[in-house]
Amino acid sequence: MENFMFQAPTKIIFGKGTENQTGEEIKKFGKKVLLHYGEGSIKKYGIYDRVMGSLKKEGLEVIELGGVQPNPRLSMVRKGVSLCRENNIDFILAVGGGSAIDSAKAIGIGVPYSGDVWDFYAKKAKIRAALPIGAVLTIPAAGSEVSCDSVITNEDGWYKRSADNEAIFPRFSILNPELTFTLSAKQTAIGIADIMSHVFERYFTQVQNVELTDRLAEATLKTLINNAGIVLENPNDYNARAEIMWCGSIAHNNMLGTGRINDWASHGIEHELSAIYDIAHGEGLSIVFPAWMKYVYKSNLPRFAQYANRVWNIDIDFNNIEKTAIDGINRLESFFREIGLATRLSDLDITDDRFDEMANKAVENGPIGFFKKLDKNDILNIFKIAL
Amino acid sequence: MENFMFQAPTKIIFGKGTENQTGEEIKKFGKKVLLHYGEGSIKKYGIYDRVMGSLKKEGLEVIELGGVQPNPRLSMVRKGVSLCRENNIDFILAVGGGSAIDSAKAIGIGVPYSGDVWDFYAKKAKIRAALPIGAVLTIPAAGSEVSCDSVITNEDGWYKRSADNEAIFPRFSILNPELTFTLSAKQTAIGIADIMSHVFERYFTQVQNVELTDRLAEATLKTLINNAGIVLENPNDYNARAEIMWCGSIAHNNMLGTGRINDWASHGIEHELSAIYDIAHGEGLSIVFPAWMKYVYKSNLPRFAQYANRVWNIDIDFNNIEKTAIDGINRLESFFREIGLATRLSDLDITDDRFDEMANKAVENGPIGFFKKLDKNDILNIFKIAL
Repeated sequence: MENFMFQAPTKIIFGKGTENQTGEEIKKFGKKVLLHYGEGSIKKYGIYDRVMGSLKKEGLEVIELGGVQPNPRLSMVRKGVSLCRENNIDFILAVGGGSAIDSAKAIGIGVPYSGDVWDFYAKKAKIRAALPIGAVLTIPAAGSEVSCDSVITNEDGWYKRSADNEAIFPRFSILNPELTFTLSAKQTAIGIADIMSHVFERYFTQVQNVELTDRLAEATLKTLINNAGIVLENPNDYNARAEIMWCGSIAHNNMLGTGRINDWASHGIEHELSAIYDIAHGEGLSIVFPAWMKYVYKSNLPRFAQYANRVWNIDIDFNNIEKTAIDGINRLESFFREIGLATRLSDLDITDDRFDEMANKAVENGPIGFFKKLDKNDILNIFKIAL
Repeated sequence: MENFMFQAPTKIIFGKGTENQTGEEIKKFGKKVLLHYGEGSIKKYGIYDRVMGSLKKEGLEVIELGGVQPNPRLSMVRKGVSLCRENNIDFILAVGGGSAIDSAKAIGIGVPYSGDVWDFYAKKAKIRAALPIGAVLTIPAAGSEVSCDSVITNEDGWYKRSADNEAIFPRFSILNPELTFTLSAKQTAIGIADIMSHVFERYFTQVQNVELTDRLAEATLKTLINNAGIVLENPNDYNARAEIMWCGSIAHNNMLGTGRINDWASHGIEHELSAIYDIAHGEGLSIVFPAWMKYVYKSNLPRFAQYANRVWNIDIDFNNIEKTAIDGINRLESFFREIGLATRLSDLDITDDRFDEMANKAVENGPIGFFKKLDKNDILNIFKIAL
């Protein structure tokens, strides 16, 4: 086990009707709120009205900035920074999924910084201060509601990069599973793939003697798999929606990464894909992860056999551990297909045209990954497996 | 699943040599430190010297208060409060196990309060402020290093009562598994029983649809069981010590209680036992829990069968679920015996003399427990089973 630091300071307020507490929570931190959200579905389903009602009830002043896109853009962040400065905003509330929250975090660090906010993502500046942010989560997927990361896409060159600092942990995150009833089957599946990927990035490690976190990760994966079928059958099943939503936060508050060296190569590869093709991050991962697994599993057969056995209940073939490992990988690919996700680039009509460009960008700061260190050639091979 | 709030703000610094970071962490909060510890073992094993070295290196001023006893006493807390006031202490560092940390928390809330600190434990006053505290943990057991609870024993009547408030979360807790190598086999086993009990109090619930937390709890119990044998065989096994230490915090930061109504009757019963007989809390629990389980299991057979199957790998007898449930309970009692703990009151020469007094005290504020609500008569029955 490796030495580690762990902290989960975000106050999670979980359950039915909890969005009505938003104003009360914000009041502890500020008075003038930037309400930041996506493309209007929160208005369609009444979430906007309830949140706004809660803010007004507490006498908070509200400036709105809607229109955050999936794979949130730097131009929107810059717009938000200006708006906050002009209006002396002292709290940013994101209502939405990871895109709205990541965009809110980016605005939060941009406001007190004299340079350009992209500096933090280009690793040219260190985050030292941020406006406090909070979240009302409507899509369980990214885990941004409990993390101190933000991922932003720079349209100038389509770079998708991340910044992290403990100053951007949301002060609170409100998680009401009812708000996820209206997610389509596709959006739900994409979220599940994203959550599973956050577990995989931590689970597939070469660090030995990490039993507790192995078992906690396996518990999270099994719960996701069991509840995926239930919500796809019945989108209004509160308990199954609640399990998936809580899995999304547990998967990414980094408890599952404690004592381990995490991998994150698949995320790096997927970021290049979604930056260029603007596909959903979760569906990019349902393509990249099976391919990555097929390419790297031999680096640690016992770990892949354990995964097959404990997560998918596949009996271990003690005379052929490799077969067990491969069965586990294939089972994941079938699962992604069963829940309606692409598992090959060709499913999304992506060809090998830009493999070279993407592989170059993925390794521009050197090889990526820990489970198996990947250079440009490795990434090209993974893209080929994924075709 | 029930609505819930969850927050784990304590910064955990985990691993080899981490006690050398103590001074650096304290410096963020204060300059004048009360160093609070137990009966001298930290001096014997060099922990005191390393921690003191780290404090001195950062130029911190230190006042000492050693001598905290197991089942920490109110008289010591009052002494600490006076000492802090006389010396304008602005940070309290506990070095030790749950007793030192609980005592530090009590002192922390006593200092800014004009009345007597017992008021908080007697529920006559609400905690509004506290001196910041931190911990260097030497005994994985109580989970106090990540909790916002404190349990103190009032010698006047031997009442053992708790107080809780988010103001008493430790600001940081330093967990170096190496510091636990010198724990005796008995101390180690007592700690394991204490940790398992924290999981049980949350696991045995009547709330349905709590799959993720069920599985996370089962993961924690399995890890504890697997590593108990390893450390009792080889006390210097770093990885097994690390697993147990991290289990101790995960078991009690309340993640495992999210979405569930917890029980806590067994803790209530045990507190009466250890308040009167001054036995180790963990060994009180290794006696009370099997007896409690035998008395209540019929209230929810499926849950006890699930526990037997998933935690102890006992095959479910589908024609006799009750037998499966009983097998699981018996397996726990055998496990406690295997690791050298008492499982009956008679093992510690405790007779039925004071059953009536203890049962009365346990229910003085009404029936206890949620899995099955227990009145005085129920508690007497549990004591009889435990004889």
